[in-house]
Amino acid sequence: MVSGRSLWVIAALCGAPLLVAAHPTSGPVPAPDDNAPLAGYSADAARVERQWEAQFQAIPEPQRMRQALQRLSARPHNVGTPYDRDNAEWILAQFKSYGLDAHIENFDVLYPTPRERVVELVAPTRFVAKLREPPVPGDPTSSILQDQLPPYNAYSIDGDVTAPLVYVNYGVPADYAKLARHGVSVKGAIVIARYGGSWRGIKPKVAAQHGAVGCLIYSDPKDDGYAVDEVFPKGPMRPRDGAQRGSVMEMEVYPGDPLTPGVGATKDAKRLALSEVKTLTKIPVLPISYGDAEPLLAAMGGPVAPAAWRGALPITYHLGAGPARVHLRVQSNWGMKTLYDVIARIPGAEQPDEWIVRGNHHDAWVEGAEDPLSGQIALLEEARAFGALLAKGWKPRRTIIYCAWDGEEPALLGSTEWAETHEQELKDHAVAYINTDGNSRGYLRAEGSHTLEAFLNGVARDITDPETQQSVWKRWQARQIATGSTGERTEVRTRANLRIGALGSGSDYSPFLQHVGVASANLGYGGEDESGIYHSVYDDFYWYTHFADTSFVYGRALAQTVGTAVMRLADAQLLPYDYVGLAETVSRYAAQLDTLAKHEADSIAELNREVRDGVFAETSDPRRPTYAPDTIALPPHLNFAPLQNGVDALTRAAAAYTQAVTAVSAGTGAALAKPEIASINGRLLHSEQALLSPAGLPNRPWYRHLIYAPGFYTGYGVKTIPGVREAIEQHEWAQADSQIVRVGAVLQTEAGLVAEAAKNLNAAAR
Amino acid sequence: MVSGRSLWVIAALCGAPLLVAAHPTSGPVPAPDDNAPLAGYSADAARVERQWEAQFQAIPEPQRMRQALQRLSARPHNVGTPYDRDNAEWILAQFKSYGLDAHIENFDVLYPTPRERVVELVAPTRFVAKLREPPVPGDPTSSILQDQLPPYNAYSIDGDVTAPLVYVNYGVPADYAKLARHGVSVKGAIVIARYGGSWRGIKPKVAAQHGAVGCLIYSDPKDDGYAVDEVFPKGPMRPRDGAQRGSVMEMEVYPGDPLTPGVGATKDAKRLALSEVKTLTKIPVLPISYGDAEPLLAAMGGPVAPAAWRGALPITYHLGAGPARVHLRVQSNWGMKTLYDVIARIPGAEQPDEWIVRGNHHDAWVEGAEDPLSGQIALLEEARAFGALLAKGWKPRRTIIYCAWDGEEPALLGSTEWAETHEQELKDHAVAYINTDGNSRGYLRAEGSHTLEAFLNGVARDITDPETQQSVWKRWQARQIATGSTGERTEVRTRANLRIGALGSGSDYSPFLQHVGVASANLGYGGEDESGIYHSVYDDFYWYTHFADTSFVYGRALAQTVGTAVMRLADAQLLPYDYVGLAETVSRYAAQLDTLAKHEADSIAELNREVRDGVFAETSDPRRPTYAPDTIALPPHLNFAPLQNGVDALTRAAAAYTQAVTAVSAGTGAALAKPEIASINGRLLHSEQALLSPAGLPNRPWYRHLIYAPGFYTGYGVKTIPGVREAIEQHEWAQADSQIVRVGAVLQTEAGLVAEAAKNLNAAAR
Repeated sequence: MVSGRSLWVIAALCGAPLLVAAHPTSGPVPAPDDNAPLAGYSADAARVERQWEAQFQAIPEPQRMRQALQRLSARPHNVGTPYDRDNAEWILAQFKSYGLDAHIENFDVLYPTPRERVVELVAPTRFVAKLREPPVPGDPTSSILQDQLPPYNAYSIDGDVTAPLVYVNYGVPADYAKLARHGVSVKGAIVIARYGGSWRGIKPKVAAQHGAVGCLIYSDPKDDGYAVDEVFPKGPMRPRDGAQRGSVMEMEVYPGDPLTPGVGATKDAKRLALSEVKTLTKIPVLPISYGDAEPLLAAMGGPVAPAAWRGALPITYHLGAGPARVHLRVQSNWGMKTLYDVIARIPGAEQPDEWIVRGNHHDAWVEGAEDPLSGQIALLEEARAFGALLAKGWKPRRTIIYCAWDGEEPALLGSTEWAETHEQELKDHAVAYINTDGNSRGYLRAEGSHTLEAFLNGVARDITDPETQQSVWKRWQARQIATGSTGERTEVRTRANLRIGALGSGSDYSPFLQHVGVASANLGYGGEDESGIYHSVYDDFYWYTHFADTSFVYGRALAQTVGTAVMRLADAQLLPYDYVGLAETVSRYAAQLDTLAKHEADSIAELNREVRDGVFAETSDPRRPTYAPDTIALPPHLNFAPLQNGVDALTRAAAAYTQAVTAVSAGTGAALAKPEIASINGRLLHSEQALLSPAGLPNRPWYRHLIYAPGFYTGYGVKTIPGVREAIEQHEWAQADSQIVRVGAVLQTEAGLVAEAAKNLNAAAR
Repeated sequence: MVSGRSLWVIAALCGAPLLVAAHPTSGPVPAPDDNAPLAGYSADAARVERQWEAQFQAIPEPQRMRQALQRLSARPHNVGTPYDRDNAEWILAQFKSYGLDAHIENFDVLYPTPRERVVELVAPTRFVAKLREPPVPGDPTSSILQDQLPPYNAYSIDGDVTAPLVYVNYGVPADYAKLARHGVSVKGAIVIARYGGSWRGIKPKVAAQHGAVGCLIYSDPKDDGYAVDEVFPKGPMRPRDGAQRGSVMEMEVYPGDPLTPGVGATKDAKRLALSEVKTLTKIPVLPISYGDAEPLLAAMGGPVAPAAWRGALPITYHLGAGPARVHLRVQSNWGMKTLYDVIARIPGAEQPDEWIVRGNHHDAWVEGAEDPLSGQIALLEEARAFGALLAKGWKPRRTIIYCAWDGEEPALLGSTEWAETHEQELKDHAVAYINTDGNSRGYLRAEGSHTLEAFLNGVARDITDPETQQSVWKRWQARQIATGSTGERTEVRTRANLRIGALGSGSDYSPFLQHVGVASANLGYGGEDESGIYHSVYDDFYWYTHFADTSFVYGRALAQTVGTAVMRLADAQLLPYDYVGLAETVSRYAAQLDTLAKHEADSIAELNREVRDGVFAETSDPRRPTYAPDTIALPPHLNFAPLQNGVDALTRAAAAYTQAVTAVSAGTGAALAKPEIASINGRLLHSEQALLSPAGLPNRPWYRHLIYAPGFYTGYGVKTIPGVREAIEQHEWAQADSQIVRVGAVLQTEAGLVAEAAKNLNAAAR
């Protein structure tokens, strides 16, 4: 669902640096040192592990990835198509050919496909939108029309509306505040928003909240068209008639099958009636190309759009409303489709009841070479390599489960239904979930649970970047130095670990992390190539082998990275969760919330003062009038003490735990082989769950994690400590106070679990 | 030369706030209070002055301004045309009809006009640029071809070159550093730069320094075309074939006639040979429209331009070089032309040897309705009003000189030659020079000598804004609150005076302020209307009366503002210079220099570290390689003590002076009528000259002011304490140290003059 470019995010780098040790910033990458210590391993175990890892890393082959990509992307394979099932069966056969125990798990889900789509300008002139992506000469798969989904937004309600057009920029709440300043209302209007600035599903939601009756979403060439680079097939960017498909279901409420919230969509599951579903859009929505958007935008009047709202079309962007009027008609086939999740299992030799789960989806909007297959081909090579290692005698300590998900694009369907079906097993057994999706060239991106931050840094230090022959960690660090502020650079140079980003949503980790409470990570390479084919017919083998990781060396790097992480988690004697990194990160989030609350209070006071003082009236140009916003009630002071106490408790427990790990790892680390360690692991694997609350977040109980969630008004973008943060952002002060108490409580629970583990470890060390 | 929009700059607002008194920020504008004190006036004198000012302000009439604008802009009237002279004679007749003593003063100057202009793409395809601005239906003057100068850049050398094209963004030094990072050289190339980011003359200068052989400057629609608003005649912005004429002489070395640097271009003046002139460009230059630029830019290859460099044409912007090759040919008629400066004089009744000089140019590139005539028509109404007041018995204490300059557009010719001719008289007599140029709707803009900051704030408090009926000061403040940062807002709300900007160049104040040392101000209204007709045939009566100050109420406001300032300066018993504002401003500049030096040192250290650490190498994409810059020698610490001592001395003297003014103004201020005050005034009027150094700035002795100058690499943009600031920016550390000593010395001289005046005032107060 998320392209390499879209999700390629350097972790935010502000706040108090944790100075641990300086790392040299130059010099050749050290040769893999078999004697280097590994967290959670005794010296002997580390040596053995590193030898197996070296063997593993030698196996993935770019040429095989290329062949797999060509096979999997040969035809359109969205949910419900024959080739979707065919791909699943091929993947199953691959797993089996590697010697793995594998099967397909089916679910039946609601999945609408387009029946009718009309966009036409009816005034002041007439223009009928094409709503089609033409084939490109030389690109063989772009001309396959059979099973090719035309551009549409899945889970838009049906509708037929004709109304004046209003341009709403990215269509996020702040954009509507700006429109109001210009005296423009979207009540009764069709809005046209550009892609970007939020997940697409937020745009119709916010538009409907403001009274709009329809929503068009177009790809402006400024964001992923000719302004960025040449367009396909000359370059990698979106051509004039290219459009971005995508789901607009309200996944920030819950993802997965809309008919079975919270439970697996198995044959016998109890299902909602379609009329009971709350996560469809409230107004009809369609995505359009900039070729189709230009005549609509050019026909608009009203105030000129603010500078930051202007795209790269050769026109003057106006806000509307009028004189442009648009007719929008959307009708879907509201049918059920079958999902094909492919699941392979490598049983653990010593702790088979502890699972490392690794997944990547296989369904695509059309051919999906980049999204998701560039990640899927790495997953396949990892699985093949594990098959080879098993044949050589490698016996993973824990169970490894490889998953090729179906139905990610419409709503994380395959992963969510699987995680909901197996929720209790995952709670009992899952150590970690590691996800990938689209992959490209450049720098490692790593996001995830902060208990895994140190672990993922360790893996990154051991993987060689194919372009520079430095470690990928080194290149990751160099990029942060090159792009960071002075304060950020200092931290990047001195902190033991590079910060990983927090997980919002947009790929299959969501159900694992945010619903079930499995420590999760999302990995990929990117940041060098531009891409404007996201969710279009042009995301295909031709495009990928001309403009992305054309030699598949980053595909291999991804397989090496993820496979190493999976092995290292699977074989560790003590699970390598790090709670100091978690505590420090949560402490930063808490400080951000304090700053945010003060900032909101100051902003409200300033706004009210400016309204009272007539600043808005005096800076209104009578020829282009602007209007003052309403004054806002001043907020109360919030009681952050419960949160701060929770942070302090976790910080103390984490320090004690780290000390205990040092004690148990002392000498050769022989104590790590003691049987007590197994029972400590059994408790530690519940530590991510301790950060969840059964009641979930306000108004969206499916999301139970109190530290990480997709934003209610950003969609994919993460909100950390979301209950508190969003309450402050929405000025719901009483809710902010009550959410602080809840977050403080889970942090205390987590601290208790960690402190107990420290005590047990200290006992084992003796 | 400078359009209302281009120069409309809100004064920078950072640094330590000077908290003097809070001003209420709302409530209706107070009725003019005849009893309010006026700096430099006794209570009685203030009352009389305010009554005359009220009479003055009632006189200017929008309808007369409209008629004058139509007359003056009826035909092309650039230097050397019959209508340029005709306008001068008409202005002379107007002055005389108002009862003023007026004459025309002539100078003979070198002024090249275009003979041949060719721009053609010769590879990979052929395209010949139009280089013509077509008439617009409905706009009668746009079709007058007789005497219409086609688009060209005056004082470009002749040349004929064919070379590959390189896109250099705005063509400022930082852009060339960026090009080097991308491995692109302009050696032997023709550069294409967009207008903006610097004065245009900087572009060919910097291009030539980097080895380019030709320079095209085009108007990108992002900056003043359809991206900003609809294009003319539907809207106010630059149409597809509109181009910006303008001078490219190296005026940052010296303005005025290139053949007579430093002396008036009178009949008998000693002249340089053309071959001796150093201020022509080093390479041929032409301005082109975006209609002509698009095929050239679209034909370019090489790396994609960085995001901030991309304009609004519907193409991918590349850096080049190649495959686009361009042929550029420029030939001028290098003839002499006669200037017609119109000078009117109102003799002072009591101190005739103290002059208030007020000017606005009358020449234009074509019809020039906005630039300069929208300012010239205000000047004419001021002169008419003074004629009327004189008839009613008003007798200004000092002499007032009204000047309608010729030849500003090519090189500030008329004002510079006049100021050079009358240099000694100006040094002996001039109290202040007040300039205007293009005018539009909105907010007062005020820039000038900081001795006049308090005075100009006082005038702004007494003028009513035609749109809000608040004082223009109030609206000026509201805008700064609306756009300022938190710190800036606090200062704006609490400081006694709003900060005025410092003067760089771009209009006729330069010779007065920066060569002769006359305290100067530049005033105008703007900030509401967009404009894309700067220096084109479309800057005409039709455009101005459709898209600018269409009802001429801001023309009236400008006449009221400037006329009030002129009267108030002319009639003051004690000249209203304020040295506390000057000292505080210079102190801020000194602090900025300290910060700048530290910033440069830190940046150099960081750059060197990143080069050594391989950060550049590790973040280079092998498919789009980037290159590390060279390391730079670390700078020494600078000795800022002489500057700080000078600032301290001036700060102490200014405080003493302000105290002395309070003493002499005590009670009814009767002491201000004492004869000693006249001799104090006679010394105070040299206080701006005290900030000059006869040797001038490094490498440009014509610029003698050590506090204000146009930037050597910005052109119009001011550099404050330029000798030091530019030395730091250019990493000429020894020069920075020696310039600090020179600036410290002039501040000590200034402090001595001010302290002496304080002593004399205190004596008069007794």
